[in-house]
Amino acid sequence: MGKPRVIMTGEGRKFFVKDTSKDFHTQFGYIKSSDLAGKEGAKILSNTNVEFSIFPPYFIDLYQRLKRDAQIIPLKDIGAIVAETGINKKSRIVEGGSGSGALACFLANIAKEVVSYDIREDFIEVVKRNIELLGLKNLKIKKQDIYEGIEEKNVDAVMLDLPEPWKALDSSSKSLKAGGFLVSYSPTIIQVSDLVNAFKRKKDFAHIKTIEIIEREWEVDQRKVRPKSRMIGHSGFLTFLRRI
Amino acid sequence: MGKPRVIMTGEGRKFFVKDTSKDFHTQFGYIKSSDLAGKEGAKILSNTNVEFSIFPPYFIDLYQRLKRDAQIIPLKDIGAIVAETGINKKSRIVEGGSGSGALACFLANIAKEVVSYDIREDFIEVVKRNIELLGLKNLKIKKQDIYEGIEEKNVDAVMLDLPEPWKALDSSSKSLKAGGFLVSYSPTIIQVSDLVNAFKRKKDFAHIKTIEIIEREWEVDQRKVRPKSRMIGHSGFLTFLRRI
Amino acid sequence: MGKPRVIMTGEGRKFFVKDTSKDFHTQFGYIKSSDLAGKEGAKILSNTNVEFSIFPPYFIDLYQRLKRDAQIIPLKDIGAIVAETGINKKSRIVEGGSGSGALACFLANIAKEVVSYDIREDFIEVVKRNIELLGLKNLKIKKQDIYEGIEEKNVDAVMLDLPEPWKALDSSSKSLKAGGFLVSYSPTIIQVSDLVNAFKRKKDFAHIKTIEIIEREWEVDQRKVRPKSRMIGHSGFLTFLRRI
Amino acid sequence: MGKPRVIMTGEGRKFFVKDTSKDFHTQFGYIKSSDLAGKEGAKILSNTNVEFSIFPPYFIDLYQRLKRDAQIIPLKDIGAIVAETGINKKSRIVEGGSGSGALACFLANIAKEVVSYDIREDFIEVVKRNIELLGLKNLKIKKQDIYEGIEEKNVDAVMLDLPEPWKALDSSSKSLKAGGFLVSYSPTIIQVSDLVNAFKRKKDFAHIKTIEIIEREWEVDQRKVRPKSRMIGHSGFLTFLRRI
Repeated sequence: MGKPRVIMTGEGRKFFVKDTSKDFHTQFGYIKSSDLAGKEGAKILSNTNVEFSIFPPYFIDLYQRLKRDAQIIPLKDIGAIVAETGINKKSRIVEGGSGSGALACFLANIAKEVVSYDIREDFIEVVKRNIELLGLKNLKIKKQDIYEGIEEKNVDAVMLDLPEPWKALDSSSKSLKAGGFLVSYSPTIIQVSDLVNAFKRKKDFAHIKTIEIIEREWEVDQRKVRPKSRMIGHSGFLTFLRRI
Repeated sequence: MGKPRVIMTGEGRKFFVKDTSKDFHTQFGYIKSSDLAGKEGAKILSNTNVEFSIFPPYFIDLYQRLKRDAQIIPLKDIGAIVAETGINKKSRIVEGGSGSGALACFLANIAKEVVSYDIREDFIEVVKRNIELLGLKNLKIKKQDIYEGIEEKNVDAVMLDLPEPWKALDSSSKSLKAGGFLVSYSPTIIQVSDLVNAFKRKKDFAHIKTIEIIEREWEVDQRKVRPKSRMIGHSGFLTFLRRI
Repeated sequence: MGKPRVIMTGEGRKFFVKDTSKDFHTQFGYIKSSDLAGKEGAKILSNTNVEFSIFPPYFIDLYQRLKRDAQIIPLKDIGAIVAETGINKKSRIVEGGSGSGALACFLANIAKEVVSYDIREDFIEVVKRNIELLGLKNLKIKKQDIYEGIEEKNVDAVMLDLPEPWKALDSSSKSLKAGGFLVSYSPTIIQVSDLVNAFKRKKDFAHIKTIEIIEREWEVDQRKVRPKSRMIGHSGFLTFLRRI
Repeated sequence: MGKPRVIMTGEGRKFFVKDTSKDFHTQFGYIKSSDLAGKEGAKILSNTNVEFSIFPPYFIDLYQRLKRDAQIIPLKDIGAIVAETGINKKSRIVEGGSGSGALACFLANIAKEVVSYDIREDFIEVVKRNIELLGLKNLKIKKQDIYEGIEEKNVDAVMLDLPEPWKALDSSSKSLKAGGFLVSYSPTIIQVSDLVNAFKRKKDFAHIKTIEIIEREWEVDQRKVRPKSRMIGHSGFLTFLRRI
């Protein structure tokens, strides 16, 4: 099949070419397989003379192709999680609520090891395909209920994307190192309120902050410099706790 | 001196204890050095009976203590950079405009190697102290003008925090792999406009997106659930290009 | 035809009934003309037993039915204009760039008198129909170029919705009372920048503020309390000057 | 004392001169009373040669001088109330929770008549002084508990700025015309949630929308064009209902 490639126009229109042994068709014309097999970084032309750059996929190019059976957490929120917790090459992370595995995959690309818990077989199948797509070796998925317990101990961070995150406070508390982070991602503010009020009673977590991240994209084209007319209004609230 | 420790109250009030061989004073009373030397994760009491949790500093605890002679880029923006570029353990990164080195330090904690260029001796001194504080081995700083050229080749990403980022387009273009990311962080929209219009003429970059990240923090305390009254209105615009 | 009526369900689904002498059909069933002619404030039932409230249209109900051939300024921005200028029953206002006349109509509902300038015959026709729809007596439209001059003198405020608002600075300056407001509504930030830099050279206006208004709508339904997923990212920037 | 005047520099620095029979001192030098008594719209100079424009106060200039013993609702939110309800010269309005009377004063400047209810004698005193300051004839204040009832009937809108707005649903319902607006301003989202869930049970109101208004101010000075670094993060949520 040849190795996968990304091709991109000067306007940033991107295509993922899975099989470089065949011609590849786009709305800007088609590209011959002989050109697709060429040197990376080369400029190649479609049959209609549109110029493309060709290069091997970066992690983010593969990530954007993940299967998404559940609603996935947007990059803006993943960024805030990484930034606020400072997770890195040495971090050991547990996740509750794999969904499609997008967050777990992104974190595994940064951290030492990630273990994700989910109870839905259909989600687990999606995550497995996504792990394979990205070629990740350090992400394990367990079909277990995180409300019942977490086998990993002394972890640096627990990420929760669950309808009732307060039910995972006990297992998270036992799994985390002192000072470790619990991050909960919830679409509604009532979930946030219930979570914060729950752990304040239990006293084994301190509330660092609850935030929402709003990303505003701009058009920049000659004198037409302005925020885009439409934007995402909301994805979820991020609550950061630390095990004390 | 004993190893540094972080102590934290149940409300998330955090103190960095550099020297655990001495008593440590806070507005919540003082803590005896014998308690500071104790087992991590333990609960300890101040002389006024305020309970603290004690643990070794996480990366983010050290990061928040970096020296800041220049205005530093906030975590919300660092998060967006990591998320949009997908940089990871294998990434090689160049930065232009070290400032206090905060961004370079954060990225070095994730990436394989980071090289930062600055021409101001005073900034370089600050960065060196910050590298030492965090114990980073994979972050180098060079006193050179990035507008003149970048010695590293085939890098995955170039980060610019410069007053005239368009002057670094040529050197960035030669340094980056095909598909590699150029990220520019600028406080004013006129800088963004000038950068985008400059590279559109040159045609060796594609514009992926220009965004601003707005972080909204919430108070969550019983029925008092509301965004905080005051917030950061603006730090900078992030422009993402890819080398084509 | 009978007088027009608004009918509304308990969920706030609203219908404008122009002709109450005929049955009215909705996706919730139809309502008999005999019920439509009934007492205002009554509850009436559709043939499928959906309950409606019936009442005479408020100004805002008519306003929401204005013809819109040009893009119209959203209510959030009209609100900011009224709030920042404090216009009221005694105010005399001139507008440059009628568009569909939505802003002029809204302001005429509050102010003593509004005169709107436009040079496009097609827009003027739309505005005339809208004036009639709302039954406004104090809104005049002139087919004249506001860049050439404003006949009204000693006005309290001039509203500009023009591609090159700086060309109307001279005529606005001669038309406004001392202390009077010039408000410019522009989609791009480059227009704002050019306007502000233009009048700073001329020195007959002081810059009060430039703002953008972001409206965030919330869903509130039992425990589902969250901002809506999609929102308007941008309409225009509002620049407020005062004649000095 | 002479009539009050506003003086303003070219940078928009504004001073309210209550007594024009005396010299007036500013950080930009002082202005002689003989100049303050001069013709409106004139340019006058301070003793240090700073140029001022002089004019009679507009409504908004007086409004910005209101006494504020309670936290007052910001202009951005008042604007949204006016815009969403379309209140105008013919509107009759009732308010519950006068606070300092700022909202009532602003609305009285637009509407036919406003009646405001409060039970705190100290607030009522402040409102009375503010009514006098603005010279409003159509704003009455009543020392009565709006939870107990509203004497005015067939009103167009009821504005609530109360800790427990759901307690005023019954009295508002009896006071409003069919189709009339109930607007509630609350700092916390839990109040919004409780209000909406309360009236949904009662079925005499339809929920039109719940919004928050975010105002973002920009600096515009040559090439320095950017949102201001600091902004108001939150004031209150606005919930709009209609009597059905």
